[in-house]
Order: sequence, then C-alpha cells, then structure tokens
Amino acid sequence: MKKEKTENLKIIPLGGLEKIGMNITAFEFDDSIIVVDCGLAFPEDDMLGIDLVIPDITYLKDNISKVKGFVITHGHEDHIGALCYVLKEMNLPIYTTKLTMGIIEKKLTEHNLMRTTKRRVVKHGQSINLGRFRIEFIKTNHSIQDASALAIYSPAGVVIHTGDFKVDYTPVFGDAIDLQRFAEIGRKGVLALMSDSTNAERPGFTQSEKTVGITFDHIFSEHTNSRIIVATFASNVDRVQQIMNSAQKYGRKVVVEGRSMVNVITTAHELGYLNVPDKTLIEIDQLKNYPPEKTVLITTGSQGESMAALSRMSADVHKKVTIMPGDTVIFSSNPIPGNEKSVSKVINELSAKGANVIFQDAHVSGHACQEELKLIYSLVKPKYAIPVHGEYRHLKANAQIAQALGIAKDHIFILQSGDVLELNENDAKITGKVHTGEILVDGLGVGDVGNIVLRDRQHLAEDGILIVVMTLEHGSNRLLSGPDIVSRGFVYVRESEGLMEEARQTVAAVVEDCLSHQKNADWSKIKLVIRDTMNDFIWKRTKRRPMILPIIMDVT
Amino acid sequence: MKKEKTENLKIIPLGGLEKIGMNITAFEFDDSIIVVDCGLAFPEDDMLGIDLVIPDITYLKDNISKVKGFVITHGHEDHIGALCYVLKEMNLPIYTTKLTMGIIEKKLTEHNLMRTTKRRVVKHGQSINLGRFRIEFIKTNHSIQDASALAIYSPAGVVIHTGDFKVDYTPVFGDAIDLQRFAEIGRKGVLALMSDSTNAERPGFTQSEKTVGITFDHIFSEHTNSRIIVATFASNVDRVQQIMNSAQKYGRKVVVEGRSMVNVITTAHELGYLNVPDKTLIEIDQLKNYPPEKTVLITTGSQGESMAALSRMSADVHKKVTIMPGDTVIFSSNPIPGNEKSVSKVINELSAKGANVIFQDAHVSGHACQEELKLIYSLVKPKYAIPVHGEYRHLKANAQIAQALGIAKDHIFILQSGDVLELNENDAKITGKVHTGEILVDGLGVGDVGNIVLRDRQHLAEDGILIVVMTLEHGSNRLLSGPDIVSRGFVYVRESEGLMEEARQTVAAVVEDCLSHQKNADWSKIKLVIRDTMNDFIWKRTKRRPMILPIIMDVT
Repeated sequence: MKKEKTENLKIIPLGGLEKIGMNITAFEFDDSIIVVDCGLAFPEDDMLGIDLVIPDITYLKDNISKVKGFVITHGHEDHIGALCYVLKEMNLPIYTTKLTMGIIEKKLTEHNLMRTTKRRVVKHGQSINLGRFRIEFIKTNHSIQDASALAIYSPAGVVIHTGDFKVDYTPVFGDAIDLQRFAEIGRKGVLALMSDSTNAERPGFTQSEKTVGITFDHIFSEHTNSRIIVATFASNVDRVQQIMNSAQKYGRKVVVEGRSMVNVITTAHELGYLNVPDKTLIEIDQLKNYPPEKTVLITTGSQGESMAALSRMSADVHKKVTIMPGDTVIFSSNPIPGNEKSVSKVINELSAKGANVIFQDAHVSGHACQEELKLIYSLVKPKYAIPVHGEYRHLKANAQIAQALGIAKDHIFILQSGDVLELNENDAKITGKVHTGEILVDGLGVGDVGNIVLRDRQHLAEDGILIVVMTLEHGSNRLLSGPDIVSRGFVYVRESEGLMEEARQTVAAVVEDCLSHQKNADWSKIKLVIRDTMNDFIWKRTKRRPMILPIIMDVT
Repeated sequence: MKKEKTENLKIIPLGGLEKIGMNITAFEFDDSIIVVDCGLAFPEDDMLGIDLVIPDITYLKDNISKVKGFVITHGHEDHIGALCYVLKEMNLPIYTTKLTMGIIEKKLTEHNLMRTTKRRVVKHGQSINLGRFRIEFIKTNHSIQDASALAIYSPAGVVIHTGDFKVDYTPVFGDAIDLQRFAEIGRKGVLALMSDSTNAERPGFTQSEKTVGITFDHIFSEHTNSRIIVATFASNVDRVQQIMNSAQKYGRKVVVEGRSMVNVITTAHELGYLNVPDKTLIEIDQLKNYPPEKTVLITTGSQGESMAALSRMSADVHKKVTIMPGDTVIFSSNPIPGNEKSVSKVINELSAKGANVIFQDAHVSGHACQEELKLIYSLVKPKYAIPVHGEYRHLKANAQIAQALGIAKDHIFILQSGDVLELNENDAKITGKVHTGEILVDGLGVGDVGNIVLRDRQHLAEDGILIVVMTLEHGSNRLLSGPDIVSRGFVYVRESEGLMEEARQTVAAVVEDCLSHQKNADWSKIKLVIRDTMNDFIWKRTKRRPMILPIIMDVT
C-alpha cells in the first residue's frame, strides 16, 4: 500500500506573496523541512512608527524537529533581513554563497549570534543534502553578486527556484547566469519553476550592468571640471566597481560614504568581489587635499532616505561634505515605488544649491523582464509554474507569460502566504493553510505593537488627543477637582481658548448631571458619557475627531 | 523729475514656486494690483490630518485698496481651489472664461458666496481693464478646456503668463492654442514671459489629446466581450468626450460615477463643452438592464484615492458596482508623484478580482514639453524669462531652456514665493520680500493648526503617548492618588503589563522623592522630573520615545 501522504512535496510560502519583501518559503517532504530565504519587509505607510516587518514563523516553530536549516539565495534585506530575529527563536544552520554569507555574518556579529550559528558556504554548482532534500546552487545574475537559483531535489521531483535574478551575458564580475545548467536540469524533467515576478510587466530584456559603466564613462568625460557625486544602492558592488573604474580612467580619487555602503563594500573587498584600482580609494577627510574635479563621492541616499548621506548633503547637515555650485550629482538608481517624492525633494534641494543633477540612464534593473522569463521557462520546461517575488499584479503578469508559453492554466499557481501546495508528478493542489503573519518591529520591541496600537497611532496622527481628567471622592463620587481638558496635536490652544473653555464647560455640565442623578454611577458609564459628549461637541464645532480620553482619579 | 518708483511693474508670487500647487501671483503697478489665480495645494506627507493648504494673503489684505480682482487662467484646483477661502476675507470680483467660471460658481454656491461675488466671463481674444492694467485672454490647450494664457499690459510693458498649457494642434474640443496671437504680441515686444515648467525636464513634444481617443478605439475593439471601466481625472472633459465617442461607436451605454466627475461633467454639458451622443448616457441604476459588454463606466479614482469610486470598487465596498472576473479596467492617467503606491494597491486588488487592468498608453499630459516651451519662447521673444508652475528642478529646467535660446542668465529669474520682482524696459531685479506662507485647513479650521500641533501629531504618530496623572493636596502637596499611567499608541498594554507596572513604580519613586524633599516643589519642576525620568526609562527599555504628558490634579 502506498503511503500517499509522504509522496508529496509541500511548498509553503510563509511570506513574500502579498507585497515586495519578507521572502521566506518552506519546502517540506516527509520528516524534512528546508527554508529558502528569511527576509524583512519595510513598513507600509499606515504602519506608523514601525521600523521593519518580519514574518511570523509559528509554522516552523511548531515543526521545529523537521527543520534542517536556511538556504539563502542572495544578500538583500528582503531575503536575509529577518534572519537574526528568527535565529533568536530557533537555532538553525545557514547555507549560502560566500559574499552572501559575508553580509549575513556582519549581522550575526551585531546581534551576537556568530558563536551559536552554524554556517556553511556553498559554491555555485555544489549541492548540499538536508534531510530528504538535496539543494544545488546555480549561478545567476542580480544587482548583488553571488546570487543563486536553487534546484531543490526531493523524492517527489525537482523544483527550481530562481531567487531574484536577471540574465546578464556580460556581467561586471564573475560569470553569466548558468543557462546550460538550467537547460540540463530542465531536460531531465522539472516538477515546478518558481520565478522572480518583479519585472514581469515589463516587455523586453533587462540591460547588462555593463551598459551603466559606459554611461559613467560618458558622464565622466563630459564633466571633467566638476566634482562628481554618485548615489546608488549600498549593496550594488558591481555598480561601485564601475564607478571606480571610470574614476581611475579619468584620474579621480574615490570616497565611499554612508555606513551601509561602507559595510558592504568592505566585506566585498575583503572577500575579493571588488577590485579597488591602486591608489584610487581615499578617506573622506583627505578630500580637501584634492581639487574637486579630481574626486568622486560614491554615496548612499539614492532613495531620498532622510538619514542617508546624500540627503544630509542636500539638506546641508552633512558633517564633511558641502554641495557646491557646479557639482555633478548622478542618481544611479530608480526610485522604488513610494519613494518618488522624497527623491524629488533631494533633487530639488541639490538643484537649488547649484548642483547639476543627472537622473536618467545611469541605472539598470536587477530583475528579469518578460523575454528573460520566457527564456528560463523555455530552458526549464516545468510541469507547474509558481510565480514568486512581487505584488499580485506582478505574479499575474508572470502567470500570463507561463500560460502564453503553453503551461496549462491549472498548472499555474498564484499562491498566498500560508497556502500549502502539495505536488507530485501526477498532481498539484492547494491542500491547506498554515498560520502566517507579519510581526512588527518597533525599536527593541518585536511583536508588541499590533493593530490596536497602530489604529491608535493613526487616530492620534490625524486629529490628536483630548484628555478629560477629574478627581472623584472614593465611595461618594463627589467631584473633588476638574474636569480639566488637556490636548495635544488637536489645535493650537492659545488661539482657541474660547473653544477649549466651552468644551470644558460642556463636559463639566454633563459630569455634574451624571453625578447628581446617579450618586453611584459606575466610572465606565461616566467615561462613556464624556466621550460621546465631547465627540459630538468637537465634531460640530471643528469637523474633527480627536481621540477623547477620559481619566478619573480616585481619592479616599 | 521722473517718479522712478511708479515706473516699475512688480511681480509678486504669493505661492506656487516651492512646490506643485497653490498658484497665486500679484501684479502691481502704481495704485493697482491684479491677482492671477488662487489655488490650493494638497498637504505634504508630514502634514498629518491636514485636508488642504491655502496661501497666506496678508500682502493683499494690507494693500486691499489697490486690489482690483482675480484673473483666473483655468479651472483646476491648484489655480482656483483657495478662492472661496480667500473671498471670505476680501470681497473681490473674478474674471475668467466660461467653463472656468462655471466650475468656480459650483464652489461659490457651496460656500454661499454667489450673491456677494461679482463675476465676469471673458472670451478668448477679449481684454479687460483693471486699474492701470489691461489683461487679454489668449486661447491655449490643457487637460481642461477653456484654459487661457494672459497678456498683461502695464505702462511698464507687457508680461505674458502662459498658465498651465500644452500645444495641441488637434484638440478634441475647440481651437488649437492661438500661436499667431503669441507671435503678434511677441513681435511688438514683450517684457517678460512666465511659462509652465511642469514638464520642462521632458524632451520632445506632448502628444495630442486625440491620440488617446485612438487608443480607446483600439482597446474597445479588442475587448468587445467584457465590461469596460475607465478611470481618469474628474475634470478632463475631453477625455470623457473621447470615451463616450468610442462607447457610441462600439454600441455601449455610458455611466459616469464619482461625485467630482459628475459635477464637472454636468457643468461642461450644460455650458456646451461636452457633446453627449444621443442615448449613450445612462444612470448607474440602469446598468443592470444591459449586458456588461454593452456598458462603459467612467469613474474617478485614477490616483488610488481611498474614497474615490474606483478604489471603493476594488475594495468591494462600492454600493452599486462589483468588479467581475473579465472586466477591463483602463487607467487613463499617470500616477501623480506620491500616489504610486496607492495606485498600485488598487491595481493589485482589481487584478486579484480577475479584472484585466490596462495602465499604459491611455493617457497624455496636459503640460508642454521642452519643444513646446522652445516654441513659445521663440514666438514671444521676451526680454526676461520667469519660469513658473513647478518644483525647483522644473523651474531650473525651464530656465536652462530659456538660456539655450539666447536669453541672458541675468535676465532669467527663478523666484521664490514673496519675492518682489521689479521690472521695466531697462532693468529687472528683486527689490524686496513680502510676507507669504501656507495656511493649513483641517476640517472647519482654517489656520488653527500650525507647526506645534503638527509636530505633536508627528510625535504621537511615531510612538504614541504616555500620560502620568496624579492628584495632590492643595498647599501641602500631599499625594492623594496616583501616579497612574495611561498610554495610547505606545504598546499593547495587556502584553506589556510588566513594563507598564515597572514604569509606574519608577515614576512613583521619583515623585515620592520629589515631594518628600521639597514640600513646596512647584508643579512645573515635578512635571519636568517626571518627563525626564520616563523618557529615560522608556528609551532604555524599548528604544522608543512616546510623548510623556504629566498631569497633576489639585484638591483642596
């Protein structure tokens, strides 16, 4: 008799399918679970005060005896950023490529987790065995080096997970994506392909990282009389490499500025992923020893992040760099959706200081466009397609590509976080749902801010708070002092004394009434009356709804 | 002896030069002031709870005896939206074209200002005399009909103000921009050109509105089996006209949905700016009488505004329309910077409901690109160039175009709000600065929310509030009750009982200490100690900084 249940591979995304970020997927077969990636997400606009968002890993904790470890595709925050938080709850080994591990180790060190965390560096082409799984790392290209696709071999079949990827035939560092290996595994038969949907709405082919180098050479040759400042993503080592190459070619010294960039660049340099041309790199304090037109600053802040180096320069609060008229500032980046306004603010400030701002053609994406996705589908020829990495619109666009290439509609799965997709050679279906969720991190607190607190913050943000406070005698409910009104974030009190005094009289009247008619009125009732009366009064007078907070003190 | 002072024309922008919106400019000569446009701005992200922003018109109030009236270029909110607020402070006549006046009159009616506001409709080609000024209205094209450029004649010379404009040789309604008149006035000599900078960074020529009609025809012909929903800007009457034309051609009934769109469309229809094809328009309640593939919905919500009709449909809370699998939804718009994420959210929700979302090629801009700006400069050949309408980066791009066309750098003025630019045939310079500013409107309150309130809201939004309340005996300062701690938006209290109790004990200890050592400690000192102690304690434990609000009640 066949044990039907153990014949199936389960794919269980624990995050990453409702929005960009927080990528984490469990693969389960029999008594073995492996986890691919463990990323964070950045807070949505309505998550006021939240620093970052990590996945709820209840499912892994409930099945901890099965979990063999984390397999990481590449070193971006949306794939590794939750690792340290999760490792504090479950001690598991990490398997990934050299640079990725280097970046992870910086984090482990900060979180004091180096000693307790087992780590193993894997080379492209190598495989590791974890329980019932074998996982092969396949070379891909992306906007960070050492990115991998994974071939996940299980008794139920092979799944290829692309990770974030693009096809770059002429990468700046190392080899092009190993298309032959995709083809080879594809030829032997692949159960499912999980592929990056980020750019699935974009037709054509993402350009090679090398094209940006040509643009830099061009800009450098045209701006030989001014200082050049280039803002780009902290982790794009190849981009930094190309800027350094142009700098050397045009006889400029290079300064790298911004903590996160210095971190990544140092790691990449130490591990041999960055070739710093001789005598090119200088410290920021040495800048003054060179004429501006002989220097290049590579900096963070390409997304207009208010605390990043470029934003501090544009706002004139950077300790060591002052923007000068004539400076050439290159945005080697596109604004990530949601950052357009802050990027524009920085551009305006730089322009107003006389800088010449260039924000076109100095960037290429790290994600595959439609023709690249078609290429991978055609090399792998999977039985099932599972679009990953993206918002719903992107997953759907990826699904449409799969369908256009002949994969039947019922063989394409747009999953939601928590879905349990069970599959084997004969069949694939969603058979259940596990608990997933978002854990909010605010300062040191992990998970102690939830919907109620966020709703309160939203309410406070919109219209502020109006506190009604009074002291009652214990037992008799005699009013000993108050009611007084204190407000914050509601209205400028000095200019609204009339309104506030009227509010006080209104609430005093209802409290008096309440207490005189019901000597033993319970406090929750008094508070309710205060809240209703004030809501009503303030709305009628101002069309606003501040939070009304009655506080009753009790004196014996 | 020449009276030098009265020989100069003064141009004083009272808003609109630091960001998009709030356009209002005073032109002053001798005893006469005219005001061009009176727009609002939408609040920045950090203006929490604010509904809209209007200009501070102190300068006009201080010179009210000189002010002759408002001259309005077109009917968009950033040019007319502050009128009703300003008119409540100074009763002045309004001069503008027919459709623009129709849209303004809707607002005047809502604000009960119709009876008291003098209004005069002006045709393109006509002039009006206001004090020492003559103002000629010149036909232009824009994304709303009846837009005008203004030729402002003063004894010191002629200024041409383009308003928002584009060059559309084949407009949907009415004539193309009156290029001949620009040329004619230019030939006679123009002192200054103030031109629209919105698209000054974009090379080339903005496409004709008619090209969108061709796209609609194309989409309608390819989607004959599904309902079509088109989201666009409420005020783009020509866009609605073209959708109606395609609908008629393909035998579909049209429903217009969304209050602001119904308002503008009704006005445009009444005034003859919209030609509704016979039997095409139906009421939303009649939709059910037609098969979906024979209907078109034109709706607001193209910017993902949460309360607009399309957003309500996508979130499944629209009372009368439910998105069905197979619906074709067209975004006939581009996201305005800052709205990208909300637009994407709506697209995701629509896609998840099975709608086919089209968001490319169904829109053209209403603003002139670089080649159009060059054309106007070349026709007008102004002595001075004053870029208007845009953020600094846009103004600068416009200035660079002027410079490339041979206008000397010192004849180009990138002004700031409040600058007084004095000019005549011989000279132009900034001679002073008048008071300007932003007045925040929140509910019924105009100007009662300022920086302090906003800073409090920001603080409350980030980390919430922690209220420390106690009752002291009057005179003796004996502690009668408390200190108690009440928090909102800080932490989920039930899961943080330990932290909150510890906080209470900490504050109780310092209060006790304070009162026992200084019987007559003044309250402000006690409050200060509480604030410092709590800030310190909470930061150490949580790395958060909620607002700490001590309240002391007083019992005799």
